[in-house]
Amino acid sequence: MSQSHERSALQRSMRSDAEHIIHRSIQAVLPDQAVLHALQGHKFPGRVFLVSVGKAAWQMAAAASRCLGETITAGAVITKYGHVRAPIANIACYEAGHPVPDANSFQATRAALKLVQGLSEQDTVLFLLSGGGSALFELPLVPAEELQHITNQLLASGADILEINTIRKRLSGVKGGRFAQHCAPARIFSVVLSDILGDPLDMIASGPAYPDRSTCTQARSIAEKYHLSLSTQAASLLKQETPKLLPHAETCIIGSVHELCRAAAETCQILGYQPLILTDRLCCQAREAGSFLASIAQSHATTDTPLAFLAGGETVVRLTGSGKGGRNQELALAAAHGIAGLSNVFVFSVGSDGTDGPTDAAGGMADGMTACLLAEQGFSIPKVLEDNDAYHALKEVDGLIMTGPTGTNVNDVSAVLIRPT
Amino acid sequence: MSQSHERSALQRSMRSDAEHIIHRSIQAVLPDQAVLHALQGHKFPGRVFLVSVGKAAWQMAAAASRCLGETITAGAVITKYGHVRAPIANIACYEAGHPVPDANSFQATRAALKLVQGLSEQDTVLFLLSGGGSALFELPLVPAEELQHITNQLLASGADILEINTIRKRLSGVKGGRFAQHCAPARIFSVVLSDILGDPLDMIASGPAYPDRSTCTQARSIAEKYHLSLSTQAASLLKQETPKLLPHAETCIIGSVHELCRAAAETCQILGYQPLILTDRLCCQAREAGSFLASIAQSHATTDTPLAFLAGGETVVRLTGSGKGGRNQELALAAAHGIAGLSNVFVFSVGSDGTDGPTDAAGGMADGMTACLLAEQGFSIPKVLEDNDAYHALKEVDGLIMTGPTGTNVNDVSAVLIRPT
Repeated sequence: MSQSHERSALQRSMRSDAEHIIHRSIQAVLPDQAVLHALQGHKFPGRVFLVSVGKAAWQMAAAASRCLGETITAGAVITKYGHVRAPIANIACYEAGHPVPDANSFQATRAALKLVQGLSEQDTVLFLLSGGGSALFELPLVPAEELQHITNQLLASGADILEINTIRKRLSGVKGGRFAQHCAPARIFSVVLSDILGDPLDMIASGPAYPDRSTCTQARSIAEKYHLSLSTQAASLLKQETPKLLPHAETCIIGSVHELCRAAAETCQILGYQPLILTDRLCCQAREAGSFLASIAQSHATTDTPLAFLAGGETVVRLTGSGKGGRNQELALAAAHGIAGLSNVFVFSVGSDGTDGPTDAAGGMADGMTACLLAEQGFSIPKVLEDNDAYHALKEVDGLIMTGPTGTNVNDVSAVLIRPT
Repeated sequence: MSQSHERSALQRSMRSDAEHIIHRSIQAVLPDQAVLHALQGHKFPGRVFLVSVGKAAWQMAAAASRCLGETITAGAVITKYGHVRAPIANIACYEAGHPVPDANSFQATRAALKLVQGLSEQDTVLFLLSGGGSALFELPLVPAEELQHITNQLLASGADILEINTIRKRLSGVKGGRFAQHCAPARIFSVVLSDILGDPLDMIASGPAYPDRSTCTQARSIAEKYHLSLSTQAASLLKQETPKLLPHAETCIIGSVHELCRAAAETCQILGYQPLILTDRLCCQAREAGSFLASIAQSHATTDTPLAFLAGGETVVRLTGSGKGGRNQELALAAAHGIAGLSNVFVFSVGSDGTDGPTDAAGGMADGMTACLLAEQGFSIPKVLEDNDAYHALKEVDGLIMTGPTGTNVNDVSAVLIRPT
């Protein structure tokens, strides 16, 4: 590498800022501290039964166990295969299928339901919920094959996720507030790590312990709209209303992309950047978001004060090739194209769970030299994006963010850092 | 329309704000005032010869004529067919082909060159330049057919606009600073209305009066890279360097998307909104930009102070259907989807030339009720976007911005307005 193509002190310093921001933001949304914080202010008059569901279930349950210890009478963790790290005292740990539920999902859910049966008004069900719960926590009221068949019909007809959930909640023994119904008369205290933008509590894991907003009337019109073929049993289930009031249920959101962005903004401020959270609801195409952020960088490159523009959310990848990458890597690579030559700009995008697409990277990062270094190695950014192959390109230019699995899952955060030249 | 579907007082008031902002921003970038302003501070010791080129050429020349009157010895206007509105004293007006140059382009350019021949050091060429000049102002040094053939080869090989211009400047008698060379020893004073993001003066109309940054070495490697088939004459022209220094040339940018955004921000401020110009370099896909802006609106919808987020630039339409629309209409429609239900948000996107795509609308606008009104009329926003048919959908819900041709051309501005509820 010739001297002119080495990164400047400013660029190295901004990269170090970015790494610090990434580290601190993810630390801030790890469930451990947040679960402790949520529990410390809480009184449990009677027995406590723990049910922890989702991709972060083991981590959340372990934190609760550290805090409450023997106060937990019994419990169940239901998480994805390979996600149980060690046994937890008094708590049975189950691993099951994700993203498609399997027999282990159903069996573990049955065990959890058994645990919360016959409780008294003095008892509390501590329900720890994280993303992935929809598949992991399920007990269909129709045969699993029929549930799958109905889901397939809805997907094939182009139904949206709201419509699909409206139907599926009524075919489930735990979704749409029904798990909370099972727990009555015991109180249920839900502690939620949100992986859905805007934190719609009746959508996260299909809302097992939250009043359901959807109605039977809506379910019927969706069934008619898509001409669903339904068994008599399924048709009759669609007429049964989900709970609209759950006075014994209380919910507390302990982490979401909002907190991720806020922690990123705070760290930016500590490092001397003036932060602006543009949004925590980003959901457009990854490469276009990268272009938009690069446009912001171009227009503010002559700033007198260090600036940080932050955007949290979950972008989508438009599949046009068959390469290797993820939404955060695509965003960063597209931004690299737009900030080419700007010596005082740094862009990164990172998934809080440490896994961006089917890769071992958590995201991507780029500075004003990235595009030039890529060109030298024969990469054309538009071509790489078209191939959805950001991973291999970024790998060659020190552009991958590697964190390993983080133990949390609250979407992504992207940032544009700009320093005065 | 039932009462619940009538727009609220807040929504009507924000629409009126939007219309005011649009009107004021476009007024601010009309060439008339800006040309006067640029000329008033300028001294012309000798004779003045005017050459005005581009889509706004007539308007700019008319303004200069009003200001300088008899000071202009002679002049030429070269603009698009149908764009000459009236004769101007001492100035010959030509209309020619755009976006593809034709015989009238070449003939008019020859007339302009004749005008600036044999001038003295005391004389000034007042060169008024606006978008569209690349096609309108051209005198190829190879036969027109060969120029077209070379351009076609480059386009077919996937060459980018920078590469195409590097070749074409060397095959032209006026591009890449050569027009300024013709004017020597007279001074040349260029007054530019920019239609390219970032105002690259050697790119606007291919920089007839600005030192060219591209080199013969670059031209040769482009010719090799794409295996261009060239006549001996063309090959020899590629070896002739374009001017790198033009000490007798001076340039003044009187309008660009930057001024458009600034005027929009000022008007927002007058109306009580706290404005933020996110960028004046927006160039991503129109519908994704709309989604991004809607995400910003969602995250700031609970604001205590009125906010205005502005983004200037020129987005691109991804063609997936064959409907009717333009980039600004697509952006607004995509945003309508994202701000659905937000009672205190208004989004608009408008082209400063008054023509968005092949339609009679200048752009589109949407509020929190737009999506609902569209659904009532049977429009699905994702489907309409897929059909590139924003015009017909927006037309049904009062979502088109109609200004008529404005007489200027400095890209687009989009805005998200948010008021406290």
